[in-house]
Amino acid sequence: MAKIAPLSGFPELLPEQRVVEREIIASLSRTFELHGFANIETRVVEPIDRLAKGGEIDKEIFVLQRLAAEPGAKAELGMHFDLTVPFARYVLENAGKLEFPFRRYQIQPAWRGERPQEGRYRQFTQADIDIVGREGLGFHHDVEVVRVMVEALGALPLPPLSFQVNNRKLIQGFYRGLGIADVTNAIKVIDKLDKLPAETVAEQLVEQAGATVEQAQQCLKLATIRVGDTSFVDQVRALGVQDDLLEEGLAELAAVIEGCADAVSDRVRVEANLRIARGLDYYTGTVLEVFMAGYERLKSVGGGGRYDALASDGKTTYPGVGVSFGVSRTVIPLIADGVLSGSRKVPSAVLIAVTDEGERPTSTAIAAALRARGVACEVSADAAKFGKQIRAAERRGIPFVWFAQADGSHQVKDIRSGDQEDADPTVWTPPEADGRAHIVVAGQDTGSPVSRMR
Amino acid sequence: MAKIAPLSGFPELLPEQRVVEREIIASLSRTFELHGFANIETRVVEPIDRLAKGGEIDKEIFVLQRLAAEPGAKAELGMHFDLTVPFARYVLENAGKLEFPFRRYQIQPAWRGERPQEGRYRQFTQADIDIVGREGLGFHHDVEVVRVMVEALGALPLPPLSFQVNNRKLIQGFYRGLGIADVTNAIKVIDKLDKLPAETVAEQLVEQAGATVEQAQQCLKLATIRVGDTSFVDQVRALGVQDDLLEEGLAELAAVIEGCADAVSDRVRVEANLRIARGLDYYTGTVLEVFMAGYERLKSVGGGGRYDALASDGKTTYPGVGVSFGVSRTVIPLIADGVLSGSRKVPSAVLIAVTDEGERPTSTAIAAALRARGVACEVSADAAKFGKQIRAAERRGIPFVWFAQADGSHQVKDIRSGDQEDADPTVWTPPEADGRAHIVVAGQDTGSPVSRMR
Repeated sequence: MAKIAPLSGFPELLPEQRVVEREIIASLSRTFELHGFANIETRVVEPIDRLAKGGEIDKEIFVLQRLAAEPGAKAELGMHFDLTVPFARYVLENAGKLEFPFRRYQIQPAWRGERPQEGRYRQFTQADIDIVGREGLGFHHDVEVVRVMVEALGALPLPPLSFQVNNRKLIQGFYRGLGIADVTNAIKVIDKLDKLPAETVAEQLVEQAGATVEQAQQCLKLATIRVGDTSFVDQVRALGVQDDLLEEGLAELAAVIEGCADAVSDRVRVEANLRIARGLDYYTGTVLEVFMAGYERLKSVGGGGRYDALASDGKTTYPGVGVSFGVSRTVIPLIADGVLSGSRKVPSAVLIAVTDEGERPTSTAIAAALRARGVACEVSADAAKFGKQIRAAERRGIPFVWFAQADGSHQVKDIRSGDQEDADPTVWTPPEADGRAHIVVAGQDTGSPVSRMR
Repeated sequence: MAKIAPLSGFPELLPEQRVVEREIIASLSRTFELHGFANIETRVVEPIDRLAKGGEIDKEIFVLQRLAAEPGAKAELGMHFDLTVPFARYVLENAGKLEFPFRRYQIQPAWRGERPQEGRYRQFTQADIDIVGREGLGFHHDVEVVRVMVEALGALPLPPLSFQVNNRKLIQGFYRGLGIADVTNAIKVIDKLDKLPAETVAEQLVEQAGATVEQAQQCLKLATIRVGDTSFVDQVRALGVQDDLLEEGLAELAAVIEGCADAVSDRVRVEANLRIARGLDYYTGTVLEVFMAGYERLKSVGGGGRYDALASDGKTTYPGVGVSFGVSRTVIPLIADGVLSGSRKVPSAVLIAVTDEGERPTSTAIAAALRARGVACEVSADAAKFGKQIRAAERRGIPFVWFAQADGSHQVKDIRSGDQEDADPTVWTPPEADGRAHIVVAGQDTGSPVSRMR
């Protein structure tokens, strides 16, 4: 049979790599729950007409059909390509049974038929938090979701992150106050600033958004403002544009930056960056993107914002604010680069040696005694020579091997140091750092970020 | 817009129901890891030719294709319909990087395009444990996986479970020793005993498996043996059939029953049931099915066994033994029947009241102090009258509401009892039973099974 090749765009992890992903998901879940976000999962499929809205994403949708379907039968279901569309549908479907504002987190895969590349996969896991209200939703929730995600990502052993925050009201108000003819198109053009040179963007603002050359220059000036505190307010005012919506946007953005001030650290910065627009036009206020130092090539590893109509059934509107973090997009490149790895291949802290097959029940009883106190362990697969059993533990990264002596006493060996000592299976526990598989960060001692991950 | 209807066969849970599923998955994971099983996840898709093997399942396979695919383009990927096919492929693909025997657990959804009914869904979550060897795999692992699943399911707050175990060598050896012409067909016929009357099965043994009337009667006698200890060995021997393979099967089955003897309880029984065959013909030794009292209509809620060739690349063979548990099949009917429910809709143990919007930072600081010690909480969405804030907590099942007094002191109210007392946010913690959302079992106090689930 031919060698099995991986499927491009569908990455899978080895057990020791899965430790990294799993611990990161556990840590995110812990932070989200501390803040009162309830976990849900949605089915992976949606009716195609709910997914396909005529946008760019449509051609990347995977549709699902039974192998036994009639030839030519119309496919009705597609795989969700993010967690927002299914969440909006879930809110509408269950509105009568949910309490609003409804705070939920959701950590699940999504699927896109795009061309695979680093950080872009056909199956990828995201972690989303959203707060959704019925008819209204207080602005303070914008501050809250950004801050929760800052805390959640700050607790992970990742390279330094930067939250780049802006506000659509600020941009729209500024453009309106400036007298730009086509505000929506101007936002779309400005969004290209990370791909095109400034002068090209300025030309397009004139050609496509009806701006004068002077207005285009003002737009570019706004877009260059990027600070870690609320001094952007004065910088914007110095540009001399007057508009009520602009004032509202300035106040909201200042509140987000201030609200996160005591959560930032060397590991997570929060900045006002007035060029962030996020192309999707359902955003109506706060918008943000998250970048990771040294991994700017991945583009944003997270993003989100406020949408005044996350969902609507025609009668009732459900505004929402949320942030999404790309788990696969972040974790898979970090694993591939050797930045993050798992401390071992198995959960076991101890391998119980087997002296001979007839003595297997002795080893099984020792394992049971250890497990009764929460010590993960496994009994040797065979009664090979002790040297071979120790090497089997070593290959799996199991730190301790346990030996039952013929006289009924016990010894446990730390196979890293070679230290061997008497032990009692009803009281012995491994040092805390060896208790469970954890994340190892390259170039760091098993210090703070790792211990924070337990 | 029309009311959104659920999609038949794709069940979704409300947040308080998801608490049940989540805690059950957490408990299973804990037990599996205590026994040294490493977690993996596989991608959801496989090449169609790996999934479709000409069996009954083929017509239930969902295939995946890009919405933008050329008309008439051949679909190449299908959704996995169990966790065994992708695991076998994963083992072959990564054989050079895995340590054998390889012990893994996997808890993921699978998809089948079958007609939805209670316990049978188009998307459903399974929890599988398997141990796979390279070339060989000691029989003691059969005992081990059954026992691990007995412990894992015994730790869940489910109705009583029964593990019904048999051994294919025992059946095959008995039929061979008896002189049945077509042993394989005889096993397929005997497998229908739970659907057809005994006399019909006897007739089919004669017609389809070339048995004599006397042989058919002996087969039926074997199939009626069902005991909770190893007395089945003498009962089989009393039928007077001699065969080496039969002896091997008797010894193996006796070892499984004995190996589980001290793990059984009122909640989980383990029995030798000599009619269990499991139709799939890749099983080669131990076979088992798991049934749940009061839910016999779901058929088995779990099953598995030994397969001497879980995977093969033509040169190397990988034998395996494993057990699968149907999480959705079990949990969704129990939730629907009100047997299991979540203790609340949110993770929060405390709602921090807001006196007026200007005082929100005070409430946010209290929440931060509580979270710093692991107390999940949320700040009230608005500064409504306290009565209204308390009712908001009540509707979510949050047990405590926290009030900051104008003089800087604090009070916390248990809204179930109405008791209100002074509290310090830097030291107060809720009683352990209120710390996190947990499973509530109908008709039981929040006693042992629930506390075991935390």
